[in-house]
Amino acid sequence: MTESEIASFKRRWSERTAALARGPAPTIDQQRAAFDAEHGAVPPADNCTIEPINNGTVRGERIVPTGADTSKALLYHHGGGHAFGSSLSHRHLVSRLASAAGVVAYNMDYSLAPENPFPAGLNDAVNAWQYVLGEGFEPDDIVVGGESAGGNLTLALVLKLRELGCALPGAIYLLSPWLDLTQSGEAFDICAPRDPMVSHEALQAMADIYCAGHAPEDPLISPLNGDLVGLPQLLIQVGTDEVLLGDATRLAHRAALAGCDITLRVWPEMIHAWPLFQNELPTKGKAAIAEAGQWIAKRLGTSGK
Amino acid sequence: MTESEIASFKRRWSERTAALARGPAPTIDQQRAAFDAEHGAVPPADNCTIEPINNGTVRGERIVPTGADTSKALLYHHGGGHAFGSSLSHRHLVSRLASAAGVVAYNMDYSLAPENPFPAGLNDAVNAWQYVLGEGFEPDDIVVGGESAGGNLTLALVLKLRELGCALPGAIYLLSPWLDLTQSGEAFDICAPRDPMVSHEALQAMADIYCAGHAPEDPLISPLNGDLVGLPQLLIQVGTDEVLLGDATRLAHRAALAGCDITLRVWPEMIHAWPLFQNELPTKGKAAIAEAGQWIAKRLGTSGK
Repeated sequence: MTESEIASFKRRWSERTAALARGPAPTIDQQRAAFDAEHGAVPPADNCTIEPINNGTVRGERIVPTGADTSKALLYHHGGGHAFGSSLSHRHLVSRLASAAGVVAYNMDYSLAPENPFPAGLNDAVNAWQYVLGEGFEPDDIVVGGESAGGNLTLALVLKLRELGCALPGAIYLLSPWLDLTQSGEAFDICAPRDPMVSHEALQAMADIYCAGHAPEDPLISPLNGDLVGLPQLLIQVGTDEVLLGDATRLAHRAALAGCDITLRVWPEMIHAWPLFQNELPTKGKAAIAEAGQWIAKRLGTSGK
Repeated sequence: MTESEIASFKRRWSERTAALARGPAPTIDQQRAAFDAEHGAVPPADNCTIEPINNGTVRGERIVPTGADTSKALLYHHGGGHAFGSSLSHRHLVSRLASAAGVVAYNMDYSLAPENPFPAGLNDAVNAWQYVLGEGFEPDDIVVGGESAGGNLTLALVLKLRELGCALPGAIYLLSPWLDLTQSGEAFDICAPRDPMVSHEALQAMADIYCAGHAPEDPLISPLNGDLVGLPQLLIQVGTDEVLLGDATRLAHRAALAGCDITLRVWPEMIHAWPLFQNELPTKGKAAIAEAGQWIAKRLGTSGK
């Protein structure tokens, strides 16, 4: 029997992790550089115009797929445990999401821990939101999204905007979001044996440097604890083979109790943030991007692919 | 401000409930007749052929929309607390689901409590499954579905088929499913104040006559307690304003932990089994039917509407 796409990926990931464990632990700068080099080498979607953004406060890039509705936008926050990742590493993913949705994407950088712990990244996300509004988009025409720690920042951003009395985005897209920085919940232990990528230890280390003394239970750090009443409609995509599965299902449960419009999509056998590995998972990675793009297109009334 | 479609429905429902409470309590036969008369009067989808089925063991009807793929089927179990409801009451809903999905529907009757408590209805569902297989469909080309108590029966049927070592259906469609006949879970109390239709008392009375001495925790009675590993892919639709919201979100959580492919759709403001009231909820009722039809069509590879 041929090894499936995802089984092959998991095997190679485990081999790679074992090989890395035999060498010296990389510094945070080495980790960032390696992550950017690897993911930045994956080509972006075809037929996109990509322009850098850097006004001293806000950094990132504007991605415009050919034929996109330039009155609708996706504001995206990359993952990487609040400690690594960048607009460069996520260009290939965000450009594909924008292309699938038929919208303009803002693929943003933000301040990273440990140099810049909470709330630095969240403040950057608020600034990015205001920047996108300044580009002329109506709040309701913007979908905010992100994966992993970027999903954390995305939901925290919406809670923060409500706290500030601002208009909210039209919808929220979360991929494998990290929503509980205390790593609690039964799912964590149940899923750990089948997650080759994310461990309790690694998450705890990243949570510690992000919190830097702030309580991890704070709803702006663990937005699963937030008041979810009145949230815009939500798409949550998650894999069954990741320790963060329970963050996604618990958000669906709590947001449902709060009266929200929710689409929870659980993908069997998939690992943490699998669409970020779309070049190695051409079937399931690309299918999940298409699903998210269609959902965004439907919400914003655009013509996605 | 104009009253919304659903607000108007809830108001009328509450008024009707209050009026009914002033009269004598109806007998079970009166309840059944009133339910069938009311819902049976709603016209079925246009352009369907409807033929009765009654072979002495299996009762119901076969619904074939014009242009349907006659190699693909939906086997549907109506709701009604295991105590009322019929193929007649659900003809308008099931014909619309079949039409939206572009498949043949088997809209089945089953034995009702209190005359026929558990496992009579479940045995009928197993017989209906075998009847549909006998019509020449491949298991994988059949979606089993149902709402409320019919969703209970549907998931119990799949657990029973696995217990019997039978091939499983290709997918499962559950609308506002009743999955925990002990009425437990935090959602029950949280949602009770906003649910104008279903009460703890009414559900408990129906659970008591269905269980008739069997333990309500039995996975074939409360399939939320079942071993969900290996279940076919699932669509679960539920409203935020119903006491059974937590049955749906808990199933999503547990089935996710079991590694299943899940789509959970939470519809804000909607009440229990709102597509059954599609004639009074022409926007949201019909939209939910369209959503379910598209999901079934995608899973079965048919051309839905």
